[in-house]
Amino acid sequence: MTNRTNKNDQALVARAKAVIPNGMYGHMSVQARMPAGYPQFIERADGVHLWDTDGNRYIDLMCAFGPMLLGYGHRSVEAAADAQRKQRNTATAPAPVLVDLAEALVRQFAHAQWCVFGKNGTDATTLSVTIARATTGKRKILVAKGAYHGAAPWCTPAPAGVLAEDRAHLLHYEFNNVASLTAAAAQAGDDLAGVVASGFLHDAFRDQAEPTIEFVQAARALCDKTGAALILDEVRAGLRLSLAGSWAHLGVEPDISAWSKAIANGHPLAAVLGNDKFRNGAEQVYATGSFWFEAAPMAAGLETLRVANEVDLPAKLKASGDRLRTGWHRQSQAADFKLRQTGPGCMPMVLFDDDPKLETGFRFTALALDEGLYLHPWHNMFLSLAHDEAVIDEVLEITERVFAQLAD
Amino acid sequence: MTNRTNKNDQALVARAKAVIPNGMYGHMSVQARMPAGYPQFIERADGVHLWDTDGNRYIDLMCAFGPMLLGYGHRSVEAAADAQRKQRNTATAPAPVLVDLAEALVRQFAHAQWCVFGKNGTDATTLSVTIARATTGKRKILVAKGAYHGAAPWCTPAPAGVLAEDRAHLLHYEFNNVASLTAAAAQAGDDLAGVVASGFLHDAFRDQAEPTIEFVQAARALCDKTGAALILDEVRAGLRLSLAGSWAHLGVEPDISAWSKAIANGHPLAAVLGNDKFRNGAEQVYATGSFWFEAAPMAAGLETLRVANEVDLPAKLKASGDRLRTGWHRQSQAADFKLRQTGPGCMPMVLFDDDPKLETGFRFTALALDEGLYLHPWHNMFLSLAHDEAVIDEVLEITERVFAQLAD
Repeated sequence: MTNRTNKNDQALVARAKAVIPNGMYGHMSVQARMPAGYPQFIERADGVHLWDTDGNRYIDLMCAFGPMLLGYGHRSVEAAADAQRKQRNTATAPAPVLVDLAEALVRQFAHAQWCVFGKNGTDATTLSVTIARATTGKRKILVAKGAYHGAAPWCTPAPAGVLAEDRAHLLHYEFNNVASLTAAAAQAGDDLAGVVASGFLHDAFRDQAEPTIEFVQAARALCDKTGAALILDEVRAGLRLSLAGSWAHLGVEPDISAWSKAIANGHPLAAVLGNDKFRNGAEQVYATGSFWFEAAPMAAGLETLRVANEVDLPAKLKASGDRLRTGWHRQSQAADFKLRQTGPGCMPMVLFDDDPKLETGFRFTALALDEGLYLHPWHNMFLSLAHDEAVIDEVLEITERVFAQLAD
Repeated sequence: MTNRTNKNDQALVARAKAVIPNGMYGHMSVQARMPAGYPQFIERADGVHLWDTDGNRYIDLMCAFGPMLLGYGHRSVEAAADAQRKQRNTATAPAPVLVDLAEALVRQFAHAQWCVFGKNGTDATTLSVTIARATTGKRKILVAKGAYHGAAPWCTPAPAGVLAEDRAHLLHYEFNNVASLTAAAAQAGDDLAGVVASGFLHDAFRDQAEPTIEFVQAARALCDKTGAALILDEVRAGLRLSLAGSWAHLGVEPDISAWSKAIANGHPLAAVLGNDKFRNGAEQVYATGSFWFEAAPMAAGLETLRVANEVDLPAKLKASGDRLRTGWHRQSQAADFKLRQTGPGCMPMVLFDDDPKLETGFRFTALALDEGLYLHPWHNMFLSLAHDEAVIDEVLEITERVFAQLAD
């Protein structure tokens, strides 16, 4: 274990508590969400590394909760964004790169015939739902129980300040459960506007699950029959599992897909892609924001997509994910812990058996932190292109020691 | 008149129509919203200038619809953002600059005791309303008829895809009309959560209006009496009229204020500021987004605020606005046009008398465009620090010619 200090971080935490509700908010609320010892602030990031304000360095397996697809400060992506920013960033009209990127995304995904950009993942999911309603003239939206689709009143996991009316036309089904999807659709009757589903089941605090072919085919058939929009929420999974869309390997295309996080390697960008069946709704909706036409993130997105294709990113991430999973499986067995690793290997989810209060999980990640490895005890993690074989081996060297300490 | 060509712009427009609904969306939809001849795309921006893709240069009086407070590419703001971006931008935890900026904003505005950052103006207004509801446990929100508070279903000006339930608990009043405010409050009964008002009346297509002291005092008294939140939407007006808040000169402080656009001189950032009476609600709401903790825009915001204070920006903008308004008044009278210039001079709104279809307004701005001046015929415009006396005089030289052509 290192002699890690956190004096500077604690001083910042004290200042933050005075001027920020709870000292921090949202998914970055370290004190409310993470084991003791996690730094609240990060001063520097490069490649796979984070440095806190006390000079401690960590290998990061969170990738900024997803945005970092190719590694922090990826040279060619930053160069593209810098060059665009020197020409113009936010201005009175959009930049040509908006068209370049829209064309690239429409080329990339078979279902996509048009594109609208925003800033937040929530912008993309909310717009997708609004476009589905505008096109169909119907109201009901089916969403999976427990799924995260953003932080707006219609979808936030926190009930505070949310009204019953904000969710009056949502109906719930269980991900991968065809019978529950059918039942929810029956409840919607002839008022079904859309079905929202994530690329895979990536809810926090529980085992992840890949979509079954029966489920995705049933969702597609339901939408074909009713004219509702099949909306694929790619915000979390997008570009890590496939460069053709997260359900492409199952032979199913959505009508509308929602993107954000990784599409510009950390630069703020969201996108809604859709097919021509839903273009009419997209034409009617007022989709806008003061910074939605910012050019540098679009240049970053274009270069991110180019690099992801050039290196066959999903294959690289799969190899790293498999290497990590195999190592953790071996280490946990040797230390006599039953580790559940579920979902895609490049978005690692690690839960311990018989750990309902996450005590073992919290100890595991806290010990790793002291050894210079930043993990998450109950949220899926993320690998990037920068997490190559050597980095994964370094991670495994650390966790070899961590499992030994955990068994003590 | 110049021999302006738009060949490159038209080629981009054709490409855009294939992959973007209507060819463009939101407030940047030039073809749907502006006179013929306006370029859809802008390739370069610097200081007060825009260059389209055909090499035509314009003096810009739109400032990116507000964000550009100090001028495009302001040197010290860009240097601050660049330096921060080299350290880290979006990462797994927030940067220390988040605390620095929250402290600076809380110091700057008398009512502010806490701060939460987002990306869009709509994030800030939606969060403000949600925090008001979370704190009070009540539902009704009063908003001014016709006011723009963002593009989410609860506030968007376009009805497509919006459900009755999205606005079930909104009640409307007329800006500056105390009787209508009182009547709306009576309708809310004991279920009033908040009153939303803009810094001044800046609705599109109509004369602007400064807030009256009677109106702002009545709004404050109503909220004091009922415990509802007085929410000041500073997204459009913020930092241009006052560095103490847009109602400070009237002696009235809001409970919550919503900020975006200009606070980071074009970098994507929004903020909600509030007093301790509403801290509890802010602590309960789940406020977050993948890019809400991006560090470079916060560094830009800190430097923007420093410069704005250092140069006494509102005084500078007022001087430029007055010079422009006086000049346009004189020119329009000489050319025998009745020009209505309303609202603050640094956010120019120009409407012609007897011009219900905006035909004269459209011709005026189209002629100006051909002379290298980018105006807006029905939306308020924006001046920046870069619009100094010399630039205003250059603008007036152009409009001298434009009024002559308009009178022909």
